[in-house]
Amino acid sequence: MDLKGYLKERCVLVDNALEKLLPGENDLPSSIHRAMRYSVFAGGKRVRPVLMLAACEAVGGVLEDALPAACAMEMIHTYSLIHDDLPAMDDDDFRRGRPTNHKVFGEAIAILAGDALLTEAFIALGAPEYVARVGAERLVPATREIAFCAGSRGMVGGQVVDMESEGKSDIDLATVQYIHTHKTGALIKASVKSGAILGGADDAALAAMTKFGETIGLAFQIADDILDIEGTTEQIGKDAGSDQARGKATYPAVMGLAESKRRARELVEIALDALSAFGEEAEPLREIARYIVARES
Amino acid sequence: MDLKGYLKERCVLVDNALEKLLPGENDLPSSIHRAMRYSVFAGGKRVRPVLMLAACEAVGGVLEDALPAACAMEMIHTYSLIHDDLPAMDDDDFRRGRPTNHKVFGEAIAILAGDALLTEAFIALGAPEYVARVGAERLVPATREIAFCAGSRGMVGGQVVDMESEGKSDIDLATVQYIHTHKTGALIKASVKSGAILGGADDAALAAMTKFGETIGLAFQIADDILDIEGTTEQIGKDAGSDQARGKATYPAVMGLAESKRRARELVEIALDALSAFGEEAEPLREIARYIVARES
Repeated sequence: MDLKGYLKERCVLVDNALEKLLPGENDLPSSIHRAMRYSVFAGGKRVRPVLMLAACEAVGGVLEDALPAACAMEMIHTYSLIHDDLPAMDDDDFRRGRPTNHKVFGEAIAILAGDALLTEAFIALGAPEYVARVGAERLVPATREIAFCAGSRGMVGGQVVDMESEGKSDIDLATVQYIHTHKTGALIKASVKSGAILGGADDAALAAMTKFGETIGLAFQIADDILDIEGTTEQIGKDAGSDQARGKATYPAVMGLAESKRRARELVEIALDALSAFGEEAEPLREIARYIVARES
Repeated sequence: MDLKGYLKERCVLVDNALEKLLPGENDLPSSIHRAMRYSVFAGGKRVRPVLMLAACEAVGGVLEDALPAACAMEMIHTYSLIHDDLPAMDDDDFRRGRPTNHKVFGEAIAILAGDALLTEAFIALGAPEYVARVGAERLVPATREIAFCAGSRGMVGGQVVDMESEGKSDIDLATVQYIHTHKTGALIKASVKSGAILGGADDAALAAMTKFGETIGLAFQIADDILDIEGTTEQIGKDAGSDQARGKATYPAVMGLAESKRRARELVEIALDALSAFGEEAEPLREIARYIVARES
């Protein structure tokens, strides 16, 4: 399949849906809505929404079953980036080559824009027409999965341990694994899993998708760590080697670059194995999984 | 009725439920869970949860129908206080006589504790046993109401305009009213309205409760403004006159103290009128409404 064309098409689909779901720049108070939109439409690759849509289709659902939830997931991802970039957190001035939210709108609005995006995700997930479409028996567990993975026992927990580990010299593999499976992995797993729930997966399909989501979530972050070392500044949208400069807990720092690459490839194989019971309909998920480690080379 | 005893009893009920719903201090990462609990259990009066429970009972529901949602509402209220107190926002060192969250745990953890509490609210609202109890046909619209009122067109929007108005000398009544109905009023309205939805209100009862919630939401904030001027530091848990010192947009600043008091009393009358079709079962709501303005004297 033409993965590039597929990803591009899905990106446009998600962007159009986000455009409709988010409050407009002229909705009052306009400053907060401008700030929310600035970061949502900052050229993200929509990895999580694309995974959610693909998982939904792989289990027999149609795109529209997962599209509002996919947008909600991107809102949550965007809020986490805005807050991570704040001076009190990673203190980043640039993200994807553009000034970070607080650099443009100030710290207070950036905090509130993150808060509002997180909240907006749950507004989108509860829209009456969406409930009418997919039914509460799918929507409520999918929403709960997303919330749980975004919270203190998921993404936020990963960010906490990441911060607390920064600059420490004695970080072990278990800690790096905790950070990766929570900070990045949790939302990726939730994307795949909630997409499958919304698409009407049975127990076996949901278990397979959960395994797939967990595994590529970790592979994705290891590949990111590798890219931070080997990628160009243009490729990664920030300075190459910034993790190392900051003393971040990464896979390569703990187990070396070669072993990290081997592990990433191995995880992709495990992820592909999890999909063995699926046919053609899971091909996009397989291609995305392969692409994750191919990025590094 | 013995309002004080009633409020105290309800407070204990909500505190016990919050205790069970929130991750424990020993759940990893413990720093974030300590920070979340520090602010949730900081002696708040649980006004919003109490209103939600009372609204649920007034329309014929039972306590348990609204209790998890009431806890979710308190988590959202607490997150908003943590973020409002941050250096980039109101920069407050004390809240209810105790050091603010960021003073104890640092800014990064305070931001994340707020994020996690907001997220935890939606985890609580989607708990499988809660869905099983009240049914998705009540839970989904109640959740959506809470999310909408907490977001950029509700509470966050009110905070944005409040910040943008600070120190300006030419604030008009419409702006103060916008701030009050959004920053404080939205969550109070959502508490009453979602409590009524969860209790199984029919259309007429829901409309009456919505009117009641909107009106006492505004009355509550006007009474707060008055208390800031007339109350003792002990009564309000922060320095008296701090709104004025900060050039905050308040009712007394725009229309004077006497007219503000008259307006607060008038709003309580309107709120009580909205409940005229209810009998004994709405007595707690009536007593709470009366108490709101009585606080000022």
